[in-house]
Amino acid sequence: MIMRSAVPTSFFKGDLYLTLILDGKEPAKKIIDELTLEVEHLKAKNILPTFCVIEVGEDPASKIYLRLKRKLAKKIGINEQTIKFPGDIRQDELIDKIKELNADPHVDAIMVQLPIPEHINTRLVLEAIDPTKDADGFTPYNQGRMWQGQVNIIPATVRSIMTILDYYQLNVEGKNALIIGRSIIVGKPVASQLLARNATVTIAHSHTRNLQELTLLNDIIISDVGRAHLITKNMVKPGSILIDVGMNRENGKLMGDIEYDDCLPIAEAITPVPGGVGPLTVANLMKQVIILTKLRHNYGN
Amino acid sequence: MIMRSAVPTSFFKGDLYLTLILDGKEPAKKIIDELTLEVEHLKAKNILPTFCVIEVGEDPASKIYLRLKRKLAKKIGINEQTIKFPGDIRQDELIDKIKELNADPHVDAIMVQLPIPEHINTRLVLEAIDPTKDADGFTPYNQGRMWQGQVNIIPATVRSIMTILDYYQLNVEGKNALIIGRSIIVGKPVASQLLARNATVTIAHSHTRNLQELTLLNDIIISDVGRAHLITKNMVKPGSILIDVGMNRENGKLMGDIEYDDCLPIAEAITPVPGGVGPLTVANLMKQVIILTKLRHNYGN
Repeated sequence: MIMRSAVPTSFFKGDLYLTLILDGKEPAKKIIDELTLEVEHLKAKNILPTFCVIEVGEDPASKIYLRLKRKLAKKIGINEQTIKFPGDIRQDELIDKIKELNADPHVDAIMVQLPIPEHINTRLVLEAIDPTKDADGFTPYNQGRMWQGQVNIIPATVRSIMTILDYYQLNVEGKNALIIGRSIIVGKPVASQLLARNATVTIAHSHTRNLQELTLLNDIIISDVGRAHLITKNMVKPGSILIDVGMNRENGKLMGDIEYDDCLPIAEAITPVPGGVGPLTVANLMKQVIILTKLRHNYGN
Repeated sequence: MIMRSAVPTSFFKGDLYLTLILDGKEPAKKIIDELTLEVEHLKAKNILPTFCVIEVGEDPASKIYLRLKRKLAKKIGINEQTIKFPGDIRQDELIDKIKELNADPHVDAIMVQLPIPEHINTRLVLEAIDPTKDADGFTPYNQGRMWQGQVNIIPATVRSIMTILDYYQLNVEGKNALIIGRSIIVGKPVASQLLARNATVTIAHSHTRNLQELTLLNDIIISDVGRAHLITKNMVKPGSILIDVGMNRENGKLMGDIEYDDCLPIAEAITPVPGGVGPLTVANLMKQVIILTKLRHNYGN
């Protein structure tokens, strides 16, 4: 469902071209509806998708995400189980618990809410998760397979960017895409997915010297930096696709990395913040839980 | 050891700047000498580095590489064992053999010479290799860890490009690097390594529409396409670093993707073909065999 004609905040350009607002709530709703139906089918076959979320210590931002995850899991019908540990848990205790969940036939998917306390090696904890139960797609095996073409289990934010491209039928083949940010959660994995779709991909970051030259050269900009006002209108080529993963709060107002109001009239398409990629991430996490559940039970994906 | 003053084919430019010829034979010799000494030390501790190379069927190009590998392993003192299978071996037989080698405490490193016959799934065969014995760095685990910062086991060609950058003290931080080609053997993994060194990285490929625009924008060009005359002098920015992984034969002459004679006077540094990256790959494969051996025996790396 293309929103070119239905978007209230669209702009008329010189050539009567409308800017596409890449709303994430509508495709998120579609995913949630599909998953709800799928879970019904699974339950009819006596399969109860079970998702274990491990929480270590008390991180205020994590609390908000965890509440969102729990609420959505419940709505879809997923059996979500939060396993809470105190912030001073030993690394080996945490890893032992993960191994126990790996071995538990009732558990379909596992995730560890990040960040975890600094005395624990995050890498070793994530590596302990069985790749066939890895809801977040952060295990080295799944990350390696992702670069080799695997698309089932990829970080939820990256799946959400791909969902937006699909939902709004934005073809990236042969286009130049600039990714700003090189985390293993967004920047690097989204590069793998855009390459798989035949985009020419540039990855920029804090050491990049000619960011404006790059933004003006590229047809697609994906920003995951977390700095308000990073991308201004003089940095954007007319007709660009702008996808904003940044989340910044300024004077109480939530905003992305891209100056939305200024860039909107220039762009072909742009994600709002909030309401763009954000609403999709939790829905896509649940989608991966269902994919893992179906794979484990040899139920056609 | 910088060769700026010692290179016979160097050119004087208007500003008396010399082009650096990135010869691979000299750093390869250095690696081989170091490994020979390391193997002596290992043997003194009763550790015999053992490297199993699996050959399936009869591929003429593979024969040449395998001979080179065997010869160099012998020179260094590595116990290289070639395991030959007929081209019609079943996939499960091949995977069973790999599992046997994984379990064999005398085996330190394993590689499967590619390509293997088409009735066998290359991915599943490579995945069967224990990542702690993965000499080529093609297992998903090692590829995933590579994107997360692991540098011990990476594809040998990629290690060779890094060797050249190190040996000739070419700092890539903050520079723009263009990689042409997106294989999991060269293009993608070299992107991971250049990002780790804080270069801004672009990956181009057969669907890239503005190759010349990109080559002219970038400070470093790494080409792994396999097409002679792909990069001509009008595509190269003065002062570029040109690394050519291409191997093409034209009228009996071996050449890379970059027009060497034409581009040499413009570049800051350039790899010859042959004699650039090529001589390093077998040496670096052996280096990874020794790294794996030392890790397995808890012998300090």
